[in-house]
Amino acid sequence: MPASLVRESEVDVLVIGAGPAGLMCANGLAKAGVNVRIIDQRPSKVAAGQADGIQPRTIEVLQSYGLAERLLREGNQMHMAAFYNPSPKGGIMRTGRAPDITAPTARYPFEVTLHQGAIEAIFLDSLSSMGVSVERPIIPTAVELDQNPIVLKDPQSHPIKIVLQHLDASEGQSETEIVYAKYLVGADGAHSWVRKSFGISMDGEQTDYIWGVVDMVPSTDMPDIRNKCAIHSDNGSCMVIPREGDKIRLYIQLTDADVLDPHTRRVDKARVTPQRLLDVAKKSFRPFRIETDGEIDWWTLYIIGQRVASKFSVHERVFIAGDACHTHSPKAGQGMNASMNDAHNLIWKLTHVLRGWADMSLLKTYEFERRKYAQDLIAFDKSFSALFSGKPRTDDNQEGVSHEEFVEAFQTFGAFTSGIGIHYAPSLVVNTTHQSAARNLVIGQRMLPHVFVRAADARPVELHDLLPADARFKLLVFTGAPSAAQLARVHSLAEDMARPEGALRVHAHAMDVLAISAGTKDDVDYTDIPEVFRSHWSKVLVDDSDMFGRTGGGGYEAYGIDARGALVVVRPDGYVAMVAPFEHHRDIDRYFESFMRAL
Amino acid sequence: MPASLVRESEVDVLVIGAGPAGLMCANGLAKAGVNVRIIDQRPSKVAAGQADGIQPRTIEVLQSYGLAERLLREGNQMHMAAFYNPSPKGGIMRTGRAPDITAPTARYPFEVTLHQGAIEAIFLDSLSSMGVSVERPIIPTAVELDQNPIVLKDPQSHPIKIVLQHLDASEGQSETEIVYAKYLVGADGAHSWVRKSFGISMDGEQTDYIWGVVDMVPSTDMPDIRNKCAIHSDNGSCMVIPREGDKIRLYIQLTDADVLDPHTRRVDKARVTPQRLLDVAKKSFRPFRIETDGEIDWWTLYIIGQRVASKFSVHERVFIAGDACHTHSPKAGQGMNASMNDAHNLIWKLTHVLRGWADMSLLKTYEFERRKYAQDLIAFDKSFSALFSGKPRTDDNQEGVSHEEFVEAFQTFGAFTSGIGIHYAPSLVVNTTHQSAARNLVIGQRMLPHVFVRAADARPVELHDLLPADARFKLLVFTGAPSAAQLARVHSLAEDMARPEGALRVHAHAMDVLAISAGTKDDVDYTDIPEVFRSHWSKVLVDDSDMFGRTGGGGYEAYGIDARGALVVVRPDGYVAMVAPFEHHRDIDRYFESFMRAL
Repeated sequence: MPASLVRESEVDVLVIGAGPAGLMCANGLAKAGVNVRIIDQRPSKVAAGQADGIQPRTIEVLQSYGLAERLLREGNQMHMAAFYNPSPKGGIMRTGRAPDITAPTARYPFEVTLHQGAIEAIFLDSLSSMGVSVERPIIPTAVELDQNPIVLKDPQSHPIKIVLQHLDASEGQSETEIVYAKYLVGADGAHSWVRKSFGISMDGEQTDYIWGVVDMVPSTDMPDIRNKCAIHSDNGSCMVIPREGDKIRLYIQLTDADVLDPHTRRVDKARVTPQRLLDVAKKSFRPFRIETDGEIDWWTLYIIGQRVASKFSVHERVFIAGDACHTHSPKAGQGMNASMNDAHNLIWKLTHVLRGWADMSLLKTYEFERRKYAQDLIAFDKSFSALFSGKPRTDDNQEGVSHEEFVEAFQTFGAFTSGIGIHYAPSLVVNTTHQSAARNLVIGQRMLPHVFVRAADARPVELHDLLPADARFKLLVFTGAPSAAQLARVHSLAEDMARPEGALRVHAHAMDVLAISAGTKDDVDYTDIPEVFRSHWSKVLVDDSDMFGRTGGGGYEAYGIDARGALVVVRPDGYVAMVAPFEHHRDIDRYFESFMRAL
Repeated sequence: MPASLVRESEVDVLVIGAGPAGLMCANGLAKAGVNVRIIDQRPSKVAAGQADGIQPRTIEVLQSYGLAERLLREGNQMHMAAFYNPSPKGGIMRTGRAPDITAPTARYPFEVTLHQGAIEAIFLDSLSSMGVSVERPIIPTAVELDQNPIVLKDPQSHPIKIVLQHLDASEGQSETEIVYAKYLVGADGAHSWVRKSFGISMDGEQTDYIWGVVDMVPSTDMPDIRNKCAIHSDNGSCMVIPREGDKIRLYIQLTDADVLDPHTRRVDKARVTPQRLLDVAKKSFRPFRIETDGEIDWWTLYIIGQRVASKFSVHERVFIAGDACHTHSPKAGQGMNASMNDAHNLIWKLTHVLRGWADMSLLKTYEFERRKYAQDLIAFDKSFSALFSGKPRTDDNQEGVSHEEFVEAFQTFGAFTSGIGIHYAPSLVVNTTHQSAARNLVIGQRMLPHVFVRAADARPVELHDLLPADARFKLLVFTGAPSAAQLARVHSLAEDMARPEGALRVHAHAMDVLAISAGTKDDVDYTDIPEVFRSHWSKVLVDDSDMFGRTGGGGYEAYGIDARGALVVVRPDGYVAMVAPFEHHRDIDRYFESFMRAL
């Protein structure tokens, strides 16, 4: 083997790991023009299986990056859930159907299932269109963080030194590279090398529940095979997740006898075959038939464990995201979603700091917001897993889980399983002072989607489409009723907000402005709105339906805003940052002053 | 110059002309796997300007070929129309706003505007993905049709001999090719060489109305600049058509003095400049300002003429389509739409005959259906043009066109301007016998769009998405109420329809089957439907709303079908061919027997 060559380089952000968290992160940063590299130790991308459901909120997030269209085209949609329980006649029977998700405000009121390889391909193609590709196979071998406070305080310094080995499997050679990075993101999975390198512990423990997973095209007479099915039988529990094409995924509850080595009491994958997993499923499906005409595409075993990293960041220079900082049960479909949303939370914050728009203090809110979320998620997952893995209630087992109990839990946890319920607590970037000015826009939750109509051309638009993840804050000026008196208030507001020292001017580069009138498309002209609130004719909306009353209208009511209007600040990641009545608009200046910098 | 080389070749269909009609035709045939070539005399594709609005029906048609998504992404949408008339204070004032289209059943309730080059690019890319490209520059120089009845009767014969000159502009050389074609489509524009070669006359005449057209990005204080505006002023009429990006198109009424050579009384384009056209527009816009900060992108002059070819086909071997068979006023936005719809009507018929699925008699219905439509269109166009080119009614001119008169005409003609009203008369392929079985599905009109929900997974689907232009007929089995008695009727129907000599078996290759139950997603299982009516789990629908009641439901009522169900046959081009109550299902066999062949 020849002597290794040592190459040295600098980068603003190095992302380790090209799974959902890492790809999301690299894509978002690249889209924002950040100098980013992403490496992975695997020589090629994942093909089948692995994580599945994309939650409604994650679809909204992907849409904000322009990536939802392809996901929706390629993926399967789960709209309905069906519940099966022991039948008095033996076997199982359907005890009910319900919406798969219970978050009525979801823009996309369903989950999408698509294999992880196809999801990753969406990111890889997007990255590639921006000239970024995943560098692989590369393994990191050493990392140091310069702890000098002066260095750490300079957002443009390169305090991270990381040694990479570029492998070339075909040649059996490797090349060493030393990278100096401003920021490092460890999205390197449950066994995260980054996490271990910085000695971050995982808190929590494994449960005793063991599940098998099988992907296949079924042959069956079970009428809910294209719905999410929660099957509780006297022969164990089972979950059906329909997937793209005619495929389904089965989650199958296993007993110790199915998988444990009787001597070591440890899981022994060699004891299990996909056919044996299917045999277990067949028993819980009775009296329905479940087989496959073809192959088992993919299979695995899971032991459920709920753990959260003790911290998500080291000096706001090294971050961990995705499975590197939380692991939980796959059935709740949380893994990939939580991972992508970690990255989504981090992207705009890193972008703002690197552009010099915000103080480094902004980066502290990543751990604050995402670790809290991970903890809530784990608590939910524990109770939900216990319910689902528990025995069903029958005449012989009055202690078991009843259908009603399970459905109630399913619906109570709806906000979690949809991802819509994510709620960030007050912080530098979440200011709840004037919540009453927009009663239903919960500050700290994602902005509610709604269809408005453009004043200039009566075209209906989903407000979310005007809130892209482009690293800019969005100032929504709800101008209120179209009366002369209110219009005078709007003009006087415009005048004051347009003063040179106001946030609208000082942070103009970091902010997009939209105006939304409570008037109708008939009585509002876009030219009625002060110019400072309309950068383009397409950015003036009215709260009205389209020409045929098919969509739109009722937005002020849905948002809890009255005829006197309100100001709403939406974060670059789509979460409501603050609201204010017109007369307190200067509080918005103070909000931005608290962490933004004048350029 | 070297001696020409003569190459000989055969093709099933030769399309001459790569405008909207020719591209649509070649694309549809290529998609159906037909051996097709398309040639054009222009060395490269059109860049800007030319035809504009895509009507709601044309969007539906493009969707059926999988081409609407890109059109909707790239194009501008016109939802609203605004009417301006002389103001008592001088200049113009807005007298009303109304929906741009007045066809409430339109799936896409708006027009799309996009320059012709971008529209053609959608077809060119689609063709290219199937390995077909427009061969250019090529001019046809001679054509002969073998009139021998025995040859003409054989659908697979090559009775057309056509001589092509392949030009190579750079070299000043040309190569001669002799093509023997089964069928020839002349989509070669208003001055059609194909039409002239076969001595087909154009009936109709020019009017005296002369209009100028200007494409530009406006600078204006006119609040309806993003709506379709019909401006009647004392200084002439003008129409605003908003386009993609910030562009608009202005149609400007001109006087003889503006454009005619005073000696010859003929239009002299040299007398006009785009700036002069804009000066005319400025007068009709007063008191609003209209200018352009940038360039005039494109401009032209039109003299309105309404003419229809005396025939559309020669022995069902040579067809003409698009501007080759009808010319009319550009403002009504009919040209490109009529052209594409000619091709759409012809594609499936040629495909069926070439595949040996149908008799050649099917091809006679092309002229029957499309010439009648062209004549209706021309009649509409004459009266609409007269109204629009007429002087507005004012105190001084009580004979002029009033706002009310114009708006009424605008709405009466709504079905025409939307394209939704196309209604083919009874023929071999339009059978109105049992209209009462589905009262609102007008036989001969396009199938009404409606959102249903899939029984297997509760996913809402637009029925149109299940009616692709894939050359197959669609048999829609409305199975009626989910009662036991009705289900028994459905099973007995299935049994009879499944007999070997029934159309469902004999023409299985030419037919897709969908089942639509009047039940709800809660009480219908897709497995309830007889197997002969469900080729796939995704093809069983229920007439219900989605899980959150956002869309779907009321389809039976909208279609005028009662709880006893009905059978609906939809043509491959999306038009309702026939309907029948269950007890008359054998009339469907007879319908197919009348022009289809057993393979």
